[in-house]
Amino acid sequence: MNSRAYVAEFLGSAGLAAVVVGSGIAAQTLSPTDVGLALFENAFATALGLGVLIAVFASVSGAHFNPAVSLVDAATGGRSWRSVAVYIPVQIIGCLGGAALANAMFGVPTAFSTTDRATWPHLLAEVVATFGLVLVIFALVRTGRGNLAAPAVGAYIGAAYFFTSSTSFANPAITVGRAISDTFAGIAPASVLPFIAAQLVGAAIAWLAVRMLYPVREPEAAIPAEV
Amino acid sequence: MNSRAYVAEFLGSAGLAAVVVGSGIAAQTLSPTDVGLALFENAFATALGLGVLIAVFASVSGAHFNPAVSLVDAATGGRSWRSVAVYIPVQIIGCLGGAALANAMFGVPTAFSTTDRATWPHLLAEVVATFGLVLVIFALVRTGRGNLAAPAVGAYIGAAYFFTSSTSFANPAITVGRAISDTFAGIAPASVLPFIAAQLVGAAIAWLAVRMLYPVREPEAAIPAEV
Amino acid sequence: MNSRAYVAEFLGSAGLAAVVVGSGIAAQTLSPTDVGLALFENAFATALGLGVLIAVFASVSGAHFNPAVSLVDAATGGRSWRSVAVYIPVQIIGCLGGAALANAMFGVPTAFSTTDRATWPHLLAEVVATFGLVLVIFALVRTGRGNLAAPAVGAYIGAAYFFTSSTSFANPAITVGRAISDTFAGIAPASVLPFIAAQLVGAAIAWLAVRMLYPVREPEAAIPAEV
Amino acid sequence: MNSRAYVAEFLGSAGLAAVVVGSGIAAQTLSPTDVGLALFENAFATALGLGVLIAVFASVSGAHFNPAVSLVDAATGGRSWRSVAVYIPVQIIGCLGGAALANAMFGVPTAFSTTDRATWPHLLAEVVATFGLVLVIFALVRTGRGNLAAPAVGAYIGAAYFFTSSTSFANPAITVGRAISDTFAGIAPASVLPFIAAQLVGAAIAWLAVRMLYPVREPEAAIPAEV
Repeated sequence: MNSRAYVAEFLGSAGLAAVVVGSGIAAQTLSPTDVGLALFENAFATALGLGVLIAVFASVSGAHFNPAVSLVDAATGGRSWRSVAVYIPVQIIGCLGGAALANAMFGVPTAFSTTDRATWPHLLAEVVATFGLVLVIFALVRTGRGNLAAPAVGAYIGAAYFFTSSTSFANPAITVGRAISDTFAGIAPASVLPFIAAQLVGAAIAWLAVRMLYPVREPEAAIPAEV
Repeated sequence: MNSRAYVAEFLGSAGLAAVVVGSGIAAQTLSPTDVGLALFENAFATALGLGVLIAVFASVSGAHFNPAVSLVDAATGGRSWRSVAVYIPVQIIGCLGGAALANAMFGVPTAFSTTDRATWPHLLAEVVATFGLVLVIFALVRTGRGNLAAPAVGAYIGAAYFFTSSTSFANPAITVGRAISDTFAGIAPASVLPFIAAQLVGAAIAWLAVRMLYPVREPEAAIPAEV
Repeated sequence: MNSRAYVAEFLGSAGLAAVVVGSGIAAQTLSPTDVGLALFENAFATALGLGVLIAVFASVSGAHFNPAVSLVDAATGGRSWRSVAVYIPVQIIGCLGGAALANAMFGVPTAFSTTDRATWPHLLAEVVATFGLVLVIFALVRTGRGNLAAPAVGAYIGAAYFFTSSTSFANPAITVGRAISDTFAGIAPASVLPFIAAQLVGAAIAWLAVRMLYPVREPEAAIPAEV
Repeated sequence: MNSRAYVAEFLGSAGLAAVVVGSGIAAQTLSPTDVGLALFENAFATALGLGVLIAVFASVSGAHFNPAVSLVDAATGGRSWRSVAVYIPVQIIGCLGGAALANAMFGVPTAFSTTDRATWPHLLAEVVATFGLVLVIFALVRTGRGNLAAPAVGAYIGAAYFFTSSTSFANPAITVGRAISDTFAGIAPASVLPFIAAQLVGAAIAWLAVRMLYPVREPEAAIPAEV
């Protein structure tokens, strides 16, 4: 059971990074004259792809693909700290592998990004983006609607590409993975730690909001009326 | 219970304003040469983001984020007039806060919009937009399908960005919030009251249509087959 | 009950025409340099708006908004020929009203379209488009999944805007309604009857396919797991 | 029963090819200046159209439209090898018919494509694309959520248009069908066999992953909470 969960987190994290980085390369290459259009294509592919990845892996590992989510899951008693200690490195390695796979599919080298992103407005945006992501997930889980996480999280990230100035990384593992592709979705290594710090702040605030707004965890609906 | 509902209305209204204003800034900045494309990006982000916000907060506060919806809810017996008297200022303050947050995430000043929108065709469009929004919500609620409000309202607003000439504000609170961002989604203060008047007319007509078409409120399905 | 159904068909048909014509005007005006982008915006708004209209009115009238659907419904025993004889004129009047409303919202005159569309490839496309639309609806209804018609029909029309050369009118009532707006979605009066003839051919072929593929009508699921 | 299944596979495969090729022609013709935008329109139409086709035909034939899916279905015991031996030629003939129909709807000749696509990065992309497609389908089927295949497969292909460099054919039958349209979605006959070989490699790897991650096939939910 546990080893299957780790494989699922690895494959899902790799899939997420391949979707984000790969669709970013396609978008930038094919729509070179309008950055908004390229971002729209990137957001469209990520919203759909992430939703599908969650639907596929949720029953095996919970489909986190994101250390911020795993940490809040442990803090709210949903998963043991020990399994989270395995999840996090697996998620990071998965995202690195997926980014490298995307590079290979598009015939571009795996190399550090040169896109500096660490400005104060972007860091505020990462706090907001991660706060929202964690709140969405645990609001659904704690009201017995975890089966809605797949479409809801996909939709949330699709929107957050545009309503945050940082395009919403909202995930320490994908932040690391995106550092090794010098393409549309890349982030310079020097910006990685500031982004991760902002994401952890956002997750911590979300944890407080979840405890206040959804104090009791309701049971999941018995009948799988999933979407 | 009540204080949680007020917090939920505040957070949801702030989230809605941040999505509308923030994605508007991103769209206008990144797609400067085609207004339709910028509006498409704005509509895409809002449709997804609003649907998610409703899914997150519906079980806590009903997820109105909109005085027109709260007023019709009270008029049809769904909520006490006393709680609506708290909801409305909370929604307005939330939308103002969310608009200011969007400004901060994109590093633009919080300032009154200079976009005059109060033309007769736009006011007719606001009547139509709000009529449709209120009808969608209460048609679902009164036929025991309130769980479909999240995707349906998101989809409705996504369509209404384009099928109305006003881009469908359809919400007095967001109309006030959008007045303090001089960006793509902004509205000049002088246009706010005419827009709100049109919205209230649309909501009143919708209230009559709801009473005629859905005279009985059916119970919600016992099993949460939500989407 | 019946009068409510007629009101619902009127409002839904008007709403459909307002969405199609209105979003066409917005798209053409705001994206004047790329017809594909304007059509994309038009398709996006129609897919979402049509799905919502079906969800809102399905429980009252069946949410046809389309004489081809009503005729096949009568031919397969789903509705009396007498009620269909009322539905069809109501649908046509509704679509005319909705088109006029869209014109008014955008401040353009209600006038006959000058867009000639009746070519042989377009007529073939209308046969295919209407065949597909009717097949989708009755495949779902006859397998007890009528609650999926709202998202499925919206999605079908969204796709058919692009995969047919005619942009998929697929509906005699909307074809008439679109004749009175000389804008993006318009159709010259001289092309209306050829389009309607092609649509009826497509509906007749679909009726045969439905009877062969889904010979038995299964009961609707007892629990409203709708989407 | 079986003959109905073969008709369903034929119609569904034809519908898929008509959607892919037809929307490709429309996109290329109407958005000639930005390849990314044309691909976006193509992906949007395919995601929606494929999801609808699966919803329509799933109860009759399983809605494969894809030899790679049929082969894995037989290998995992879901369908007899004998029926798969009929499915595969029917799928190929259906895709050829659908491509020819799309050509006819747009008034372009049915002719071999001249678009060479067989590069190593593209072949790697086809391995990844088909691996993902087969994993998505069987993950859902083996966890009792086959009713989610319609939206999930549509969403997956919509994302894969962008996150793979090959635009994700992921289907030997559609690869053959796309060879007879010298338009946006076409593929030169010389590239067909390399693409199919890569697709079969991806399907085989997915078959191993499915057996490891979802070792037991759980029963389908008794209540059709489909989407």
